[in-house]
Amino acid sequence: MSSAHGILFDHGRTARIGLPEAVFCEGKPEGAVIELLARFAGSSCPPILFTRLAAEVFASLAGEVAGNYDYHPLSRTAFRETLPEQGKGSVAIVSAGTADGPVAWEAARTLSYLGIAHRLFEDCGVAGLWRLTERLAEINACAAIIVVAGLDAALLSVMGGLTSRPVFGVPTSVGYGVAGRGKAALASMLCSCAPGIAVMNIDNGYGAACAAARVVNGL
Amino acid sequence: MSSAHGILFDHGRTARIGLPEAVFCEGKPEGAVIELLARFAGSSCPPILFTRLAAEVFASLAGEVAGNYDYHPLSRTAFRETLPEQGKGSVAIVSAGTADGPVAWEAARTLSYLGIAHRLFEDCGVAGLWRLTERLAEINACAAIIVVAGLDAALLSVMGGLTSRPVFGVPTSVGYGVAGRGKAALASMLCSCAPGIAVMNIDNGYGAACAAARVVNGL
Amino acid sequence: MSSAHGILFDHGRTARIGLPEAVFCEGKPEGAVIELLARFAGSSCPPILFTRLAAEVFASLAGEVAGNYDYHPLSRTAFRETLPEQGKGSVAIVSAGTADGPVAWEAARTLSYLGIAHRLFEDCGVAGLWRLTERLAEINACAAIIVVAGLDAALLSVMGGLTSRPVFGVPTSVGYGVAGRGKAALASMLCSCAPGIAVMNIDNGYGAACAAARVVNGL
Amino acid sequence: MSSAHGILFDHGRTARIGLPEAVFCEGKPEGAVIELLARFAGSSCPPILFTRLAAEVFASLAGEVAGNYDYHPLSRTAFRETLPEQGKGSVAIVSAGTADGPVAWEAARTLSYLGIAHRLFEDCGVAGLWRLTERLAEINACAAIIVVAGLDAALLSVMGGLTSRPVFGVPTSVGYGVAGRGKAALASMLCSCAPGIAVMNIDNGYGAACAAARVVNGL
Amino acid sequence: MSSAHGILFDHGRTARIGLPEAVFCEGKPEGAVIELLARFAGSSCPPILFTRLAAEVFASLAGEVAGNYDYHPLSRTAFRETLPEQGKGSVAIVSAGTADGPVAWEAARTLSYLGIAHRLFEDCGVAGLWRLTERLAEINACAAIIVVAGLDAALLSVMGGLTSRPVFGVPTSVGYGVAGRGKAALASMLCSCAPGIAVMNIDNGYGAACAAARVVNGL
Amino acid sequence: MSSAHGILFDHGRTARIGLPEAVFCEGKPEGAVIELLARFAGSSCPPILFTRLAAEVFASLAGEVAGNYDYHPLSRTAFRETLPEQGKGSVAIVSAGTADGPVAWEAARTLSYLGIAHRLFEDCGVAGLWRLTERLAEINACAAIIVVAGLDAALLSVMGGLTSRPVFGVPTSVGYGVAGRGKAALASMLCSCAPGIAVMNIDNGYGAACAAARVVNGL
Amino acid sequence: MSSAHGILFDHGRTARIGLPEAVFCEGKPEGAVIELLARFAGSSCPPILFTRLAAEVFASLAGEVAGNYDYHPLSRTAFRETLPEQGKGSVAIVSAGTADGPVAWEAARTLSYLGIAHRLFEDCGVAGLWRLTERLAEINACAAIIVVAGLDAALLSVMGGLTSRPVFGVPTSVGYGVAGRGKAALASMLCSCAPGIAVMNIDNGYGAACAAARVVNGL
Amino acid sequence: MSSAHGILFDHGRTARIGLPEAVFCEGKPEGAVIELLARFAGSSCPPILFTRLAAEVFASLAGEVAGNYDYHPLSRTAFRETLPEQGKGSVAIVSAGTADGPVAWEAARTLSYLGIAHRLFEDCGVAGLWRLTERLAEINACAAIIVVAGLDAALLSVMGGLTSRPVFGVPTSVGYGVAGRGKAALASMLCSCAPGIAVMNIDNGYGAACAAARVVNGL
Repeated sequence: MSSAHGILFDHGRTARIGLPEAVFCEGKPEGAVIELLARFAGSSCPPILFTRLAAEVFASLAGEVAGNYDYHPLSRTAFRETLPEQGKGSVAIVSAGTADGPVAWEAARTLSYLGIAHRLFEDCGVAGLWRLTERLAEINACAAIIVVAGLDAALLSVMGGLTSRPVFGVPTSVGYGVAGRGKAALASMLCSCAPGIAVMNIDNGYGAACAAARVVNGL
Repeated sequence: MSSAHGILFDHGRTARIGLPEAVFCEGKPEGAVIELLARFAGSSCPPILFTRLAAEVFASLAGEVAGNYDYHPLSRTAFRETLPEQGKGSVAIVSAGTADGPVAWEAARTLSYLGIAHRLFEDCGVAGLWRLTERLAEINACAAIIVVAGLDAALLSVMGGLTSRPVFGVPTSVGYGVAGRGKAALASMLCSCAPGIAVMNIDNGYGAACAAARVVNGL
Repeated sequence: MSSAHGILFDHGRTARIGLPEAVFCEGKPEGAVIELLARFAGSSCPPILFTRLAAEVFASLAGEVAGNYDYHPLSRTAFRETLPEQGKGSVAIVSAGTADGPVAWEAARTLSYLGIAHRLFEDCGVAGLWRLTERLAEINACAAIIVVAGLDAALLSVMGGLTSRPVFGVPTSVGYGVAGRGKAALASMLCSCAPGIAVMNIDNGYGAACAAARVVNGL
Repeated sequence: MSSAHGILFDHGRTARIGLPEAVFCEGKPEGAVIELLARFAGSSCPPILFTRLAAEVFASLAGEVAGNYDYHPLSRTAFRETLPEQGKGSVAIVSAGTADGPVAWEAARTLSYLGIAHRLFEDCGVAGLWRLTERLAEINACAAIIVVAGLDAALLSVMGGLTSRPVFGVPTSVGYGVAGRGKAALASMLCSCAPGIAVMNIDNGYGAACAAARVVNGL
Repeated sequence: MSSAHGILFDHGRTARIGLPEAVFCEGKPEGAVIELLARFAGSSCPPILFTRLAAEVFASLAGEVAGNYDYHPLSRTAFRETLPEQGKGSVAIVSAGTADGPVAWEAARTLSYLGIAHRLFEDCGVAGLWRLTERLAEINACAAIIVVAGLDAALLSVMGGLTSRPVFGVPTSVGYGVAGRGKAALASMLCSCAPGIAVMNIDNGYGAACAAARVVNGL
Repeated sequence: MSSAHGILFDHGRTARIGLPEAVFCEGKPEGAVIELLARFAGSSCPPILFTRLAAEVFASLAGEVAGNYDYHPLSRTAFRETLPEQGKGSVAIVSAGTADGPVAWEAARTLSYLGIAHRLFEDCGVAGLWRLTERLAEINACAAIIVVAGLDAALLSVMGGLTSRPVFGVPTSVGYGVAGRGKAALASMLCSCAPGIAVMNIDNGYGAACAAARVVNGL
Repeated sequence: MSSAHGILFDHGRTARIGLPEAVFCEGKPEGAVIELLARFAGSSCPPILFTRLAAEVFASLAGEVAGNYDYHPLSRTAFRETLPEQGKGSVAIVSAGTADGPVAWEAARTLSYLGIAHRLFEDCGVAGLWRLTERLAEINACAAIIVVAGLDAALLSVMGGLTSRPVFGVPTSVGYGVAGRGKAALASMLCSCAPGIAVMNIDNGYGAACAAARVVNGL
Repeated sequence: MSSAHGILFDHGRTARIGLPEAVFCEGKPEGAVIELLARFAGSSCPPILFTRLAAEVFASLAGEVAGNYDYHPLSRTAFRETLPEQGKGSVAIVSAGTADGPVAWEAARTLSYLGIAHRLFEDCGVAGLWRLTERLAEINACAAIIVVAGLDAALLSVMGGLTSRPVFGVPTSVGYGVAGRGKAALASMLCSCAPGIAVMNIDNGYGAACAAARVVNGL
């Protein structure tokens, strides 16, 4: 049983649920995050994923620690190495607009870390339907689909009506007014008129990637 | 200045805003509604529209009063005569599903009463996109568009991205859970990713018809 | 293109998304529901599922129509025949308490209709953990898991931490006060501390079955 | 198909809906916004509108890029050139108080960009009714009216009762307590007792201008 | 210390706050309400006011009990005798529409019971401003003003900008959608742009009358 | 008709409602606020009150402007001169705790500006009831009472049950969690079990002072 | 492992947590409740408590079943026998008004069933403080205190400031408007300015009794 | 009666409720907090606890003042001396994850100050159930249990089903989206399926310690 700043790791998690532990950095004391990054920097450590890792925190790492990690600023994710490619099915990540990028990329980076193939289809918002329909065949070639959208999240229902794949919607906290904080997109997704669409918490790209991984891991 | 059950009519309204007064019956004492229906039943009275008029209330009218009115149960509307056809432009009413019928028909009946041409396009929900795209040319031939939808209300954004016409969205209180009472549809509509889409209160088919009438009356 | 009471069926849906259309009866005019039941009662009609079909409405059917349907009062579902068994994987439906029964059974009945094997594990609420852990091996033998729970919905997180399968949570509108209408359960599920758990609208047993079907259909 | 920082432009939008694309800058990575401003700075580029463009971001542009744009700090909008004046009808923008200025001006600037004539009537809040009634004739000379108000948004209903023109309400996020973030103004506007008033998202001056443009473009 | 069904009356209340106790009947067991009505029916009992007393409950009283009370169905109030007229100032009750009647009359009846002069001005909604302005002088002749309005409650702000009197707003639960249950009217009233306007709970005509009584009692 | 930065002053307000205009500075562009302060700094200008005037904005004024104003940092208010003392009745301001200070003092300063006598009773929270009861006689000697409280706002009901004076509650945005932003205090105040208590918007000390002034001005 | 209508009883609960299982009847199918009542009616069955048992359901029981139960209509509770008196400490139940009776009595009846002494102090609402202070010594003689109150729930804070005992607040769903459904009382209780006060779900008298039992059982 | 910056201390509180006063620093003017810290720094002063004391404020203290205090940055608490150990029972503080640390430690520090023994069990989130079950015997050896958890707060129900001790849940404001600000955890805790669980305000570690102290003080 390992411990860092009182953190009790659940190293049996992979055996139980097929997904290794990850460290959600937002809201944790900065010192604890930095110590964890240092602890797992060695090549003999088990692989670990850091999410919501602010660029300023990563920038404050000692060079020899930071150098061991692959850090991606837009998604605020870091890992040292990825799990071995499992090679079964791939995941499509379909997003509505540029502002959804951080969440879409958090999903993509999590899938990279988990060794699962994936493709990212950005700017498919339904205000210009052709952007989605032109790429439909490629999307449907994947085994699971993640839809990332804010505002009215209408993309989820349109996508859900055009595919037989498992679909996971991630509402994003883009926009302002009624849209602000993603509550409208969340409600819209939960009410989708397309059947069998499941939904994640607002901005939870990491969770959507894990949900898709549960599907692909079972193929 | 007329008065019934203490009701002070605003007969100058048509001159000021181009729309005659209407009586919203829900929440008014049943006796007051019945007295108003009797008062305006004569052929010399000014035309008047009753909305949210429950079938049970209408059924309790004396026959000679009821016989003067054209009552439509699904939309719960009644009028004795319509305003003269103004013949300028027409209005498209596009709805997502069968459960949106009472609201879509409230809009249609209000337009009938106002003497404005209109067409109703039902069952255009985006879970089956072809139902909208097949009728797009007919819809775009109208001068204004009313979109009636509940749940995720995704139809509004798709419609808004395919027309240059003024578009008025009416969220409906269909569904359950998060959808119940139309709050999700309302939020989704206000956040539409299609530009220049305006929104009415939940289930306000009457208001949408008036908004479209303001457009058509100005042509 | 068929039409009943203005309903425009989407018969191409099965080809597009692998799930046939279903009729959500709540909120539709009773006459329209009865007409639809009559229309699809013949053995040459395509199979169709009716959900949220009130017992009183079903009881008002003519005997020769009702006799063609398999109606299940707790779940308020009816179908005439099921799709052929597809025989790939099975689905576990795990529920917290007796009050979750209508939703759990809506999921079970939908899976029956879709020809997908499933098992129902009721009364697994975490206030008595042994009720879940005793049945864990059987649950994990399924290819996908639906968790139905109201109140704190703590069952979802405990389940999610004990399985590698895709998990779909359905919050239920049981309880009172803060729990009433399922908002607390929905929020709790969306915030689950177990990774990769996806969530459906409140009381949406039908949707969870469709989501699980998307997984099983892809095996 | 053009692309900047992964942004897929919808250049067919003007043909479909009569409104060119605009870039909503808030929430987009600053680097992406700056690159877009640089890309569209040349006189051979199609005209484009930037909204919610923070003064600090604009100030960080290279001089030769910034010099090509007309930037307006209060409304946080920028464009290089406007569309040709279409000369049909004009739009009145009526606002309640000084704090509504940024939203009222976002509407005004969007109309300027779209080549649509407009007039701005500020400080018409109903706590001093004379401020509105004195300007009523001028307002009613316009073909469409945008009402910008926060707090109780009572101006919208008073205005709506004094005009036959299409009216679009924009609630603003001014004030504090219950008013904060514009939720009270939004609810008030959606419930307006004046018939046929349509509503935009909170602070959505851009959207109101587009909605008015849809009306004027159809004259 | 008296007691009925375990109810501990606060007979010192008039001495402390100038207002006698009243019995809010809604939500109390019907048996307890009937026993109280019987107990206070005698002419030697202290005067008492019953509010939210359903017509069905009053109708179930024995004739000799009911005959002692003055029951008013629209406001659902009953009292046996009123307090002596205090003769200082009067109160204006200004309401927006017919549906606000039950609340406006609850205020009026409470003032009757308290022995305070008052006048009721109904149907003053701002969609027809002349209805208010025509009666302004009469309203301003009163010492305090109660404004009863639902929906957007715009009447409160307009009234507040036209009087120097203490003004108490009562939002009403009329309307539907966003208006339903009075939340929009409450928020609008709390955000009134007119200074020094105070607000009561939704539908609380009784409370507004007591607030006005506190003002008049202090003259 | 004067104008500064487009601000249309309502100089007839005092005649109409007995209260001069005030400038709410929060949310107005800083430049506009500074220009207004400069404009009204001269001794020949009409008196004016500035509320929610941040210390940093006031500190940025030129010395000769700032020197003309009486600025009070805790309440963030400024005025150059006060209205003449009207000498009729006085107002008690009763607050629950230290954190309510800014709002209690905003009320006090507004009353100073309006020329109305007042006394401030701080730290009267009901967790130590003696703090209120010891000062009760002094409080009841005033003609109107303002109660400023956050959290559970229980002080308002206790105070309301111990006085016959008009009482105006001001909920404050102190505390955290459920209390944060004052929503709990606002709801608690609106539901006060003491009769005839009226409520202002959250943190609206200015409004409460104006409401009390309407009472005192009418004595 | 027993089972009725699929209900899996947790008979080890008493050993684990010191509280036997109870059956919450609301929301369970009526047939299942009636079967359970019949099953546990025999004198050899373990004692069991039924809560939220509607009078109509109890009235539909066969006489020989009903005769074995002690049913209390106000609290809607039933049990056949109580647990042996444990004789350690007693519990005070303090309620604000008559409308809180059903919840206060649910707590009292649950304590009776659990064999814990208790006293009920009704009508202690703070609008008349003397009703609480007169009984303070008796209340403080108990080992734990349950406070039942709706509306502003101010009683909880006043009580909490006058006792050293563990205090459990139960908000009730009495009242209307903002108070309706108990949300205001719940928020007020959670924000209590008295330290160390804990809160139960709205109307959860049963839960408060169990919480107090956990305290008394540990003495 | 002492006074600092207008603060009226309630020094009789310990006698009345067994808990000395504490100073909640957040939201109080920084100057007032610093003056209070200076005032109570002397060894002859009564002991006092400061909560929510920001590190920056503490760092700005003069050295001779700061040196007298024991400041703990994670919990943001300070005290000069603790109350005498009362030696009766101890309290278990069980938390779900690292991000709950500040709240768990606020509870622990408050108990230290109150002289009550306690143990902290961190990282017991139910996604890895073994972390709780391994420590169950130690937890159950305590007389009261505080459970600190955010997100779904499922730990509370699992814990509540495994102990007979009084349990106080503290929801924390960790996480994002639906979880943000602790509303989901609060709702989940109030709806706990384990009986007799009481709940504190979000992040209220101080209150939970006081509630547990009320239990332990009564042993």
